[in-house]
Amino acid sequence: MNPTTDPASVLRTLIRCPSVTPAEGGALAALEALLAPLGFAVDRPVFSDQGTPDIENLYARISGNGPHVMFAGHTDVVPVGDEASWRHPPFGAEIADGFMYGRGAVDMKGGIACFVAAIARYIERNGRPKGSVSLLITGDEEGPAVNGTVKLLDWAAKKGETWDAAIVGEPTNPDALGDMIKIGRRGSLSGTIVVTGKQGHAAYPHLADNPVRGIVTLVEALMHPAFDEGTNDFQPTNLEVTSIDVGNAATNVIPAKATATFNVRFNDTWSAEKIQAEIHNRVDRASTRAILRPGRDEPIRFDIEWRDSPSHVFLTRDEALIGVLSKSVETVTGRLPQLSTSGGTSDARYIKDYCPVVEFGLVGQTMHMVDECVALEDLEMLTRIYERFLADWFETA
Amino acid sequence: MNPTTDPASVLRTLIRCPSVTPAEGGALAALEALLAPLGFAVDRPVFSDQGTPDIENLYARISGNGPHVMFAGHTDVVPVGDEASWRHPPFGAEIADGFMYGRGAVDMKGGIACFVAAIARYIERNGRPKGSVSLLITGDEEGPAVNGTVKLLDWAAKKGETWDAAIVGEPTNPDALGDMIKIGRRGSLSGTIVVTGKQGHAAYPHLADNPVRGIVTLVEALMHPAFDEGTNDFQPTNLEVTSIDVGNAATNVIPAKATATFNVRFNDTWSAEKIQAEIHNRVDRASTRAILRPGRDEPIRFDIEWRDSPSHVFLTRDEALIGVLSKSVETVTGRLPQLSTSGGTSDARYIKDYCPVVEFGLVGQTMHMVDECVALEDLEMLTRIYERFLADWFETA
Repeated sequence: MNPTTDPASVLRTLIRCPSVTPAEGGALAALEALLAPLGFAVDRPVFSDQGTPDIENLYARISGNGPHVMFAGHTDVVPVGDEASWRHPPFGAEIADGFMYGRGAVDMKGGIACFVAAIARYIERNGRPKGSVSLLITGDEEGPAVNGTVKLLDWAAKKGETWDAAIVGEPTNPDALGDMIKIGRRGSLSGTIVVTGKQGHAAYPHLADNPVRGIVTLVEALMHPAFDEGTNDFQPTNLEVTSIDVGNAATNVIPAKATATFNVRFNDTWSAEKIQAEIHNRVDRASTRAILRPGRDEPIRFDIEWRDSPSHVFLTRDEALIGVLSKSVETVTGRLPQLSTSGGTSDARYIKDYCPVVEFGLVGQTMHMVDECVALEDLEMLTRIYERFLADWFETA
Repeated sequence: MNPTTDPASVLRTLIRCPSVTPAEGGALAALEALLAPLGFAVDRPVFSDQGTPDIENLYARISGNGPHVMFAGHTDVVPVGDEASWRHPPFGAEIADGFMYGRGAVDMKGGIACFVAAIARYIERNGRPKGSVSLLITGDEEGPAVNGTVKLLDWAAKKGETWDAAIVGEPTNPDALGDMIKIGRRGSLSGTIVVTGKQGHAAYPHLADNPVRGIVTLVEALMHPAFDEGTNDFQPTNLEVTSIDVGNAATNVIPAKATATFNVRFNDTWSAEKIQAEIHNRVDRASTRAILRPGRDEPIRFDIEWRDSPSHVFLTRDEALIGVLSKSVETVTGRLPQLSTSGGTSDARYIKDYCPVVEFGLVGQTMHMVDECVALEDLEMLTRIYERFLADWFETA
């Protein structure tokens, strides 16, 4: 058998490349060596930015006369953590009891291996594809993500590339292959509230203004009531206060400042601007409440510092893409996948600006954990799903 | 004039000793040199404890046939802070516009200077005092206070010393000399609440348990409702949350733990044990509330760690001590002092276990500040108050 058509063989090669972000670790070189013989034109652009490591990326395309589908993913992996606690070496790709072990097995060298095997099988069976297929692979998904997918899309688009659909191969299935296709994501936005009080002695509180009272009052206003109850396509909007900090070690001193940082995942009821305005409103209104500050008339003094740029909510409604992929999943696994918008963000949030995008990959249970592993049976099934998708989508799109 | 009868002269000597805790700086030696010629027997015990600096202390007594009054205080001072921002050098004792400047001018080398001048004048006028007078002076009041007043009292008591009354010379007057005698203090107690949650990804809150929700709920229960409305003798009990800390820098991560540290100043409605029980009750009850944790049935998981040992509430009711001191203040200043239990703790909380104790000294406005200073007029008035007290108290007690 041509080893490129065997996803376990491709995955073994990729796992043995120690490509912890930002290291390329040989993974993209290995991928180029597999794709070029299939007829792909392979580019390996390196992007850099002040203050971040240079990152290697890969864009490979095989062209046909028809629509263009992109497969997107990353070869970089998160650190192994405590290597001593792995039962199988994290870069060993050992097989035991039907599972292959190693960092990246499901997130997401496994997804890439299945896609490479699927396209190799497709070509073996059909020859040159009817349409165009490209792989857009970054080495910077688990890191700062500055020199990865965003720049790679921009670079390719400037070369004149256009796409009709995209699949991101992240592990989307919670329990078993076929559970879930992700067809959108909530938006995400983070900020820090800084409350300014007045330092003083704990025994003379009337001479001070304890910012802890203020931050608790404002944090409460952030956390309830609920923002919404969810929509047809999305989970409810949710806000988590991820840290509150004062850093005062002296118990006889009232501190001068308190901060609270929060992250909100918002659904299609909101835009980033609307959710920011709602948060401002809540905090503004709460700042004049006196529940925890008896006898104080002046509002709580606060600032909100918004972090980075928000990631916007999106929902993909491309019937050909979603329908063909769902049917492929159902045919191979016997299960009709749920179409979901749950969970965290992924690089799909950037791709959605270029073409309809969905996410479907392996089972995520062991991702980022010690002894990350993938069932060999899942590798084979996902390869069949991707191959079937290619065949059917070129007929439909 | 005998310079020992001039409080400004004594204070100049003391300020010029740079006795920032734990340094003796020559201050106790200077005091010994002033007291010995007046007929005082002077001891200079040094106390030590593992992990803390050795501390020099002073106990001086002149004995007569009658009751025994103790004057208590400290020669150590807090650091000068930014020396460049002092208009007058902190150890220079410069005089300008009727004020003497220097670290410790009011807290509380000034009080000691007035007491030394008062006893010198008394002896000059009356000869050996009718009763006994002692000075109990530590060099460890502004520091950890481990090798200071507590050990000095124990050391003196073991030598057979007993006292009938004590005055602590801390600056008790908020605005003008004669404002306020302190006749007791609220108790003080500190603790830390630790809430344990479950770490997770901010996009999957149902798989995690954010301890920020728990800590905000418990902190709110600490802060209201009010513990009491105050009593005839005391201000209301008050609790300040002095810090809340999580220390989580990743906005996409729900943290595992949150802590809140609080300090409560409690009046004679409570004992330390009762206020601890009340706090436990409040937090226990709140731990089962779900306002901020919709859908969670299990109580918030928390621990309370009590800090150090509590300082107990006390109230002095000695009519001779309070009456004679009030009358002396009124005679010299023309103002009837308020009898107060407000503000923070002082070494009086230790002395109260040996004899009735009150606090009366200078005006506290510049204590611990840059350009700490005392009005020369106040030094003269306080000296007269202390001298008058000595004369009248020996007649009354």
